[in-house]
Amino acid sequence: MSTTGKVIRCRAAILWKPGAPFSIEEVEVAPPKAKEVRVKIVATGFCGTEMKMLKSKTLHHDRYPIIMGHEGAGIVESVGEGVSTVKTGDKVITLFLPQCGECASCLNSEDNFCKQLKQSETNLMSDGTSRFTCKGKLVYHFGNTSTFSEYTVINEISVAKADAFAPLEKVCLISCGFSTGFGAAINTAKVTPGSTCAVFGLGGVGMSAIMGCKAAGAARIIGVDINKDKFEKAKEVGATECINPQDYEKPIQEVLFEMTGDGVDFCFEVIGNPETVAAALASCHESHGVCVIVGLMIGDQLNISGHLFLSGRSLKGSIFGGWKSRKDVPKLVSDYMAKKFNLDPLITHTLNLDKINEAVEFMKTGKCIRCILLL
Amino acid sequence: MSTTGKVIRCRAAILWKPGAPFSIEEVEVAPPKAKEVRVKIVATGFCGTEMKMLKSKTLHHDRYPIIMGHEGAGIVESVGEGVSTVKTGDKVITLFLPQCGECASCLNSEDNFCKQLKQSETNLMSDGTSRFTCKGKLVYHFGNTSTFSEYTVINEISVAKADAFAPLEKVCLISCGFSTGFGAAINTAKVTPGSTCAVFGLGGVGMSAIMGCKAAGAARIIGVDINKDKFEKAKEVGATECINPQDYEKPIQEVLFEMTGDGVDFCFEVIGNPETVAAALASCHESHGVCVIVGLMIGDQLNISGHLFLSGRSLKGSIFGGWKSRKDVPKLVSDYMAKKFNLDPLITHTLNLDKINEAVEFMKTGKCIRCILLL
Repeated sequence: MSTTGKVIRCRAAILWKPGAPFSIEEVEVAPPKAKEVRVKIVATGFCGTEMKMLKSKTLHHDRYPIIMGHEGAGIVESVGEGVSTVKTGDKVITLFLPQCGECASCLNSEDNFCKQLKQSETNLMSDGTSRFTCKGKLVYHFGNTSTFSEYTVINEISVAKADAFAPLEKVCLISCGFSTGFGAAINTAKVTPGSTCAVFGLGGVGMSAIMGCKAAGAARIIGVDINKDKFEKAKEVGATECINPQDYEKPIQEVLFEMTGDGVDFCFEVIGNPETVAAALASCHESHGVCVIVGLMIGDQLNISGHLFLSGRSLKGSIFGGWKSRKDVPKLVSDYMAKKFNLDPLITHTLNLDKINEAVEFMKTGKCIRCILLL
Repeated sequence: MSTTGKVIRCRAAILWKPGAPFSIEEVEVAPPKAKEVRVKIVATGFCGTEMKMLKSKTLHHDRYPIIMGHEGAGIVESVGEGVSTVKTGDKVITLFLPQCGECASCLNSEDNFCKQLKQSETNLMSDGTSRFTCKGKLVYHFGNTSTFSEYTVINEISVAKADAFAPLEKVCLISCGFSTGFGAAINTAKVTPGSTCAVFGLGGVGMSAIMGCKAAGAARIIGVDINKDKFEKAKEVGATECINPQDYEKPIQEVLFEMTGDGVDFCFEVIGNPETVAAALASCHESHGVCVIVGLMIGDQLNISGHLFLSGRSLKGSIFGGWKSRKDVPKLVSDYMAKKFNLDPLITHTLNLDKINEAVEFMKTGKCIRCILLL
């Protein structure tokens, strides 16, 4: 029996209040309105951003209960009025960063920060309402996507069509973590062949940055992390060497200068810590070195010696790896299908949605690169 | 009678100790050694960097007496052994930033920070001696150039040949100030046609940045300075509008956002003040905005909200406008001769060397864009 136009009852992981564990509940998911699609989520990554959100008590104000999750892949269940770019049955990747195609950022070839992203800050759909309810209460959306639900409603501009044969439990990583790190190297830093790179922070995004450096032809890729258990995996994906700042008495930038002679050509901070950003910038070559901040920094002040910029270093922000989401994600999925890169090393754990609180624990231990939740 | 191989006695402006006025003295200038050239300086700009040096009591340690000056143009008087790229009688521009052509930076197309620059930190020639004496005392060199002397000795790699018809009292500005600002727009920021730019600080380098933005085809160029007397000149060289932060109660970044809608595409900080750098970065478009630090910051800490980088802003250092000095300066001189830009608006005062302390006073008043000293 078709579900089109009807409310769907399904399972979702709800966060009822800040600091609470996720709670698996039955929710009602309303049909998509105009320019919206309802997606059956098949798999979703549990991203470091969710961990930051869980720790923060202020980020979502009082927008609880909420369905989080943004690194998803699924199948279009039904589409609202006026949707023309995807149809029922299409495999799609969810996009926390939309691409409306009409705003100044979408029209600028050097910019991917679609203005419609701001709409997600309301944690509601664009008409100011939610498509989710639970136990009679409105449930807030998250990140334009809310993938911790078997069904979710998303704006058409926040889904990208994926190859019909794509394994959704892998390519969901293209929805955020992989693309963010890989693109930071390819698009933001524009890593050059033969160059020397360093990646600070060896989580899923950091590993993806290493893969990006490798794909761009870097000659040396130095992984930096205080957890040496991550070094083996980092080398598997392309790091040529790995170092632990805790093994040295001197600052890590001095260690990197000794290792490289002149500092690294490209450096990636994939932690979101002001002190590591300063160290990463200082690790760069004094004149042509480029440091990309990939880690999420909200509310932190950077304290950096102005002298570091004197001779020409650059410090760049990067969001979603500089990819134009709807345009580039289908290509990244195709590249994955063509075996141009491998997502398997990034996936260390796979769990069913109802084990989501175990995913939180895995992330805390640092043993998890990426945990995929199956719905 | 030829002076080749002989000590030349001539006039120079000497700084005997920190904080003292310049003193016009007779100095002895030894002949050039191997790979060195002796240059008769015809004209030299008095650059803001000299002002910063005068204010600083620590920058030159105890290297006094010293002959400062680096924005010079002159004629080769004689050359040392092994000099092959210039000869007696050639017009040359002095280069505080050398181009040895052999170091990793010179060999990197994205880098102009020649390693040989470091040698100038000794304030001596590369054999560890000085070519200057005065009253029996060794006099230190400055910035690879020491242009506040009628004759000076410079490494071959620190002079660029200039067009034989070039007016040296104008093109000396290509030695530093003009190229630094103009290149920051052209090479470092890579200003795009139709873009919106802002320039914080309307001295000689800031004016040159405006000229660079204009040459690159910017549609709007907003000059920012607390001295509104500079606005007329800024408009003459290409600013489309000028604003004084003191005319507003709100932060200047908010004013610029209101003026532009989304912030400026390219912003130049040509002051060297940590607070203005933070404001300039915050004035940039949140995702593709590029802020270039042109002002000299030594020993200052930048305190910047990490949030500013979240969506993709860039903060870049720039030295000598990103030009490869020996390769690009001759082309800039040719471009000047071909009237591709005009240096006249930058020159507000011209004095003889013996009036150098008046130049200091002109710089202090803020009424001076550039003061040229004739030797």
